[in-house]
Amino acid sequence: VKIRLGIIGTGIAAHQLHLPALRELSDKYEIAVVCSRNEERASAYAKLVGGVPYVLDYRDVLKRSDVDAVDIMLPIELNYQVARDALKAGKHVVVEKPLATSLADARRLVALAEASPKVAMLAENFRYRPAYLMAKSIVDSGQIGEPRSVVVIVAALMDENNEYAQTTWRIHHKYPGGFVTDAGVHQIGALRTIFGDIESGFGYTQQINPALGEMDTAHMVFRTRRGVDISLQMSFSVHGHSEDRLLIMGTRGSMAVNPDRIGVLPDGGELKYYPTPKSMGYREEFEDFHLAVSTGSKPLSSFLEGYKDLEVILKAVQASQQGRPFRIAAD
Amino acid sequence: VKIRLGIIGTGIAAHQLHLPALRELSDKYEIAVVCSRNEERASAYAKLVGGVPYVLDYRDVLKRSDVDAVDIMLPIELNYQVARDALKAGKHVVVEKPLATSLADARRLVALAEASPKVAMLAENFRYRPAYLMAKSIVDSGQIGEPRSVVVIVAALMDENNEYAQTTWRIHHKYPGGFVTDAGVHQIGALRTIFGDIESGFGYTQQINPALGEMDTAHMVFRTRRGVDISLQMSFSVHGHSEDRLLIMGTRGSMAVNPDRIGVLPDGGELKYYPTPKSMGYREEFEDFHLAVSTGSKPLSSFLEGYKDLEVILKAVQASQQGRPFRIAAD
Repeated sequence: VKIRLGIIGTGIAAHQLHLPALRELSDKYEIAVVCSRNEERASAYAKLVGGVPYVLDYRDVLKRSDVDAVDIMLPIELNYQVARDALKAGKHVVVEKPLATSLADARRLVALAEASPKVAMLAENFRYRPAYLMAKSIVDSGQIGEPRSVVVIVAALMDENNEYAQTTWRIHHKYPGGFVTDAGVHQIGALRTIFGDIESGFGYTQQINPALGEMDTAHMVFRTRRGVDISLQMSFSVHGHSEDRLLIMGTRGSMAVNPDRIGVLPDGGELKYYPTPKSMGYREEFEDFHLAVSTGSKPLSSFLEGYKDLEVILKAVQASQQGRPFRIAAD
Repeated sequence: VKIRLGIIGTGIAAHQLHLPALRELSDKYEIAVVCSRNEERASAYAKLVGGVPYVLDYRDVLKRSDVDAVDIMLPIELNYQVARDALKAGKHVVVEKPLATSLADARRLVALAEASPKVAMLAENFRYRPAYLMAKSIVDSGQIGEPRSVVVIVAALMDENNEYAQTTWRIHHKYPGGFVTDAGVHQIGALRTIFGDIESGFGYTQQINPALGEMDTAHMVFRTRRGVDISLQMSFSVHGHSEDRLLIMGTRGSMAVNPDRIGVLPDGGELKYYPTPKSMGYREEFEDFHLAVSTGSKPLSSFLEGYKDLEVILKAVQASQQGRPFRIAAD
């Protein structure tokens, strides 16, 4: 059965991240209506997706009986209100990450999701990226023994020419941490997917390029509840150096997760490369959403997982500002 | 003028690290006497270096008027007593890193060195490695703008088959941090050489292989006094992965310092590689020591620098055990 989807928000995510996935999954989704406060954009996107109706107020999406689910891709500060209203209106909800701008709002959304019979999913594509899911299954297989020490380096240049960096709500961000929160929450999602819950952490953050907002560079350390130590270095103002990698060192081997392949070197064995699908996880997340809506299964990327991702990055940002490590109590 | 050197300690450092350098500098040094508590070793080393006399008690080295300077390469816990006695006996002193097993002892050695007319040098070869000195001069040249974000990854396997790991005083180490202190102090020496004093830090440490002592893995973050943030990940129990690299990201470019070459990529420019001499810095440190002894200049690797290196690594180890960041007051 096709899910009849209301698209709320027609920015970069709607065009470049979700639409290609929805097109690949045209047997599972149809776009019923499009919403943007900007009529020109609403109309253009509605035309782009086949001439569906458009509205300017998201409440008009929620009122429609031909909409089963909404896909919320708005400035982060609107996530709470719109996701809340959508759940209250009895719609299934998928909302772009991060879940909210504050832990309090995120917690309220988790409570609403848990009380709702509808599916509530955070669109955290890193939780669905085949490279990370493969990494998790290799780690879980014990090929490198117990994972103990992890290094993540993310270095990229997001300057004024970058379209994400040009987004008004990113420059004048209404949430702590700016780019570090917005991009860092992806990394936390991937790390928590592979290594489980994070127990404590600390870090330093700084602003190199004021055009990117409050901060664009972070050096963080974490310890997971199962005793894996993690170094996470992220900078989005790196000139002349670009890297995206994850090293996992275990008691009997190690592995390097790169965007295109995973190298695994068990102790005393030979280095083996496993190519990874190029997918960024958007198709997979919409497959999971469809499965959850059709069968009542719980999506991998629940609001609770989204809350936990956000909790780690917001507490790490706060720790960097206060000069004190954070600790998260066990569930 | 040749410096007449008393060799105190005939272990790995005496054979593999200092002797090749002293042989290259045979116009600047001659070994006058050798000392080890173990007569067999003392005799063998004395024979190896040309049949010089040997003694079993370091005090017998200090008494000799044909000894200008002593090269102390003992288990770390003996550094304080022997360096102190050597300075008091009016000898120039070079002592293998780390300076002492405690900050209190290290501070006393700094005071003795400052009160002495003789040269007191810490043999911290990383302070003399051409790769790091080249990195410093490229950073100082402004080619990559201001340095802001630094990542150091050191991953190596030091298991029971490694000769350093077999050293009794390393396994039953009488200083906090075991391998993390012993090897980590090198990294701090290099980082302080390039980026100046460290102001604060935090980290997690753990033991993967109990045969290596208290801890063998560290994930640390530091902020320098001039605002450079650093991630330092070290593991000496890494199976199947070996790495030694330093990434420096600046406001107008970035560079990667590898053991054999430095890659520099200025913003908008082209990646250029500068090959680095393979030297580990031992020859250079003995050249500096000779210069200091002959001209009265101050060695680059003074006891004070050694104290500061040790302060950072010991405080970072303690921070990891207490779960609290450390801060070092300005001079």
